[in-house]
Amino acid sequence: MSVEQQAGDRLSADDLRDAWILFTPDDRRLGFEQLQRPEAEDFFLSLPARDQEELVLALPPDQRRSWVRLLPPDDAADLVQAAPPEEREGLLALLDDATRREVTALLAYAEDDAGGLMNPRYARVRPDATVDEAISYLRRQARERTEVIYYAYVLDDAQRLLGVASFRDLFAAAPDKRVREVMHGDVVSVREDMDQEEVSRVFAERDLPAIPVVDAEGRMKGIVTVDDIVDVVEEEATEDFHKHGGVEVLGAPYLEMGFGAMVKKRGGWLAALFLGEMLTATAMAFFEEEIAKAVVLAVFLPLIISSGGNSGSQASTLVIRAMALGEVRLRDWWRVAGREVMTGVALGLILAVIGFVRILVWQKIGHVYGEHYLRVATTVSLSLVGVVSFGTLTGSMLPFLLRRVGLDPASASAPFVATLVDVTGLVIYFAVGSVILSGTLL
Amino acid sequence: MSVEQQAGDRLSADDLRDAWILFTPDDRRLGFEQLQRPEAEDFFLSLPARDQEELVLALPPDQRRSWVRLLPPDDAADLVQAAPPEEREGLLALLDDATRREVTALLAYAEDDAGGLMNPRYARVRPDATVDEAISYLRRQARERTEVIYYAYVLDDAQRLLGVASFRDLFAAAPDKRVREVMHGDVVSVREDMDQEEVSRVFAERDLPAIPVVDAEGRMKGIVTVDDIVDVVEEEATEDFHKHGGVEVLGAPYLEMGFGAMVKKRGGWLAALFLGEMLTATAMAFFEEEIAKAVVLAVFLPLIISSGGNSGSQASTLVIRAMALGEVRLRDWWRVAGREVMTGVALGLILAVIGFVRILVWQKIGHVYGEHYLRVATTVSLSLVGVVSFGTLTGSMLPFLLRRVGLDPASASAPFVATLVDVTGLVIYFAVGSVILSGTLL
Repeated sequence: MSVEQQAGDRLSADDLRDAWILFTPDDRRLGFEQLQRPEAEDFFLSLPARDQEELVLALPPDQRRSWVRLLPPDDAADLVQAAPPEEREGLLALLDDATRREVTALLAYAEDDAGGLMNPRYARVRPDATVDEAISYLRRQARERTEVIYYAYVLDDAQRLLGVASFRDLFAAAPDKRVREVMHGDVVSVREDMDQEEVSRVFAERDLPAIPVVDAEGRMKGIVTVDDIVDVVEEEATEDFHKHGGVEVLGAPYLEMGFGAMVKKRGGWLAALFLGEMLTATAMAFFEEEIAKAVVLAVFLPLIISSGGNSGSQASTLVIRAMALGEVRLRDWWRVAGREVMTGVALGLILAVIGFVRILVWQKIGHVYGEHYLRVATTVSLSLVGVVSFGTLTGSMLPFLLRRVGLDPASASAPFVATLVDVTGLVIYFAVGSVILSGTLL
Repeated sequence: MSVEQQAGDRLSADDLRDAWILFTPDDRRLGFEQLQRPEAEDFFLSLPARDQEELVLALPPDQRRSWVRLLPPDDAADLVQAAPPEEREGLLALLDDATRREVTALLAYAEDDAGGLMNPRYARVRPDATVDEAISYLRRQARERTEVIYYAYVLDDAQRLLGVASFRDLFAAAPDKRVREVMHGDVVSVREDMDQEEVSRVFAERDLPAIPVVDAEGRMKGIVTVDDIVDVVEEEATEDFHKHGGVEVLGAPYLEMGFGAMVKKRGGWLAALFLGEMLTATAMAFFEEEIAKAVVLAVFLPLIISSGGNSGSQASTLVIRAMALGEVRLRDWWRVAGREVMTGVALGLILAVIGFVRILVWQKIGHVYGEHYLRVATTVSLSLVGVVSFGTLTGSMLPFLLRRVGLDPASASAPFVATLVDVTGLVIYFAVGSVILSGTLL
């Protein structure tokens, strides 16, 4: 039974929202067509741009116009950007002339710049208008717009941003005062080419509902509102999370990725890490003789190298997130290195003590590690201090190195750090072993 | 020279913001006291609650009142919550009676519930007021408040939420219409005890600037605004990021954590993982004989087990983030398991082919793996398929398991998954080895 035939019990907007992810594009359209117009409008406006685009293209051409025209220019630009290149002209043609010009201007910005986020429509007033004139102008604006108006921006004849006045400032002032006397002159603004991650930092620091976007000459281009920033913050956090887990950024919901695309997004990194990890096999080959003589060394190998990987993963996690939140900057690398060396040694010592006790206890119970068990325990403990310190330092410095050469610090993924540390950890372990065990087992 | 003595070149708010993280509480106070009042107010309002609290307590008692009274009730409640218990009464006493009652009511909510996020002040109108009355009421409100007013909420006599009207709805309507005729009746609201992560999902889905908070009886308690949600999204992303990296949630900026606290936050998990990883030493002890006979097996051990850990880390990363974004729900576990088994086998096959070729090439060049190199290569390749499939399945299912028993899925950290997979990977590898190499090396 298709969605269309369930005439008796119609889908509500909430039902449709719940089932959305399970539906094919065609089911989605059928479900959407069952909604009443006002409910359907709310539903359409709440969809992400990718879904809006898919839905509009699934509708018959003569019905597309009214939906696309519902969108403010920034959202319309996102919809056009989400569409396949061959459909973009057709979608632009659905807009009225003024909006089409605005949308075309927005499409020129990189998607993750302030310019790509901004809404080109905002309330502007002249500095020499009276407060009363400004208020009735804003009332007229409020009547014509779907967006919430937060502030009136005061521009000179060259469109340069002079100041800002909130509703509250205007309502609280005497009606015959000039806007110039009421406005705040020291406006927080962002440049049109500022990266969206940095824009979200400005919002977090200043707690504003909207921030104006200006070009290099200080001419106002539009506003970014805080509700767009929620999406930016989610998106950037997802990207960092994926990169740090050693996955290429998906760019689509997990359950909507095809099998082939999924294998590709993960296989690339996994194969690269595998090639890197092959160095362990090369390194191990050098120590084959030692292993043959002292098999007990091999027994503790996974324990030692994984401890290095784990401590490195912790360090890279902390540094990457602190960088993303703006708490740690590139120039702080030296302070971080100092802290992490100390922390690494302390953590290494904790594991060394646990490891030492563990070997002693097992030896008491089962005599499993032979007559030289004290030397074995010493080898394991000393190696742990070395490997954990090295892992911590590597994990904390790799994000700085990546940022320094212009890459994303989040690419210092847990698996990447672990792979780096595995090879070195193995060499540290066998080097310590050949000193401590020389003349006894080796 | 102290900050105070730099009379000649006073600190600006921007300088202070930049140097903040490097300053002691006393330096911060001295810098803050140098700002002009309006600049200082903006600066104070933009600080996080922890810093506001520290700053207020660093000021002499007679100066504290005017700063605390600057805050809206929700922010004042956050400040009180951030203070040491013995200071809280004193801080509450600084507020005026009405605000103190509001703040005390807010303090009863859990910090990460909708109730803990909300502002109890909002614009309310009666359903039978005229549009004209409502507008002049809102104008009066706008004059008295520091907050932006997004919507007027329509309540009945029992404080139950009937509907909502935006500025735009009111301005666009005929002045003598009733609010009841203009309002939207189908209001998106959240319950006061809804978790803040879920509240942020509602904001992301609905794209609203503010959402009303109601109790179980539908009585309106306050509003949550989208600018508070940006902080929630950042905070939740940081928590998940830390947990997934195998670190306890820091709860403070990286550079502000003391050495002891830092070692404690990381040492606990690291030691727990170390104890878990000790199972590898126990398992390895069972295979000592095999290793002694076929040292070549040990050579590939780190490569095999780390591939399992890496693929597990990828899978847990994808599932945890998809759960946090609401894309994957508990009931989707079966679909995810199906996808991940297929993906795991595919990824395992890719690594198996690379591994097989690698051993063949090295053998051609250096004859390093002895006469049974084909059997060795087969052991490595088959193990890779097994270990990677197992790692992928474990990494994807562990977050479901954790959520099922009421824990945070993000605790399925990369190191935790790697540790689980290391032990099993090792057993798979030696099991495959003893079958394939039986009668030749073993």
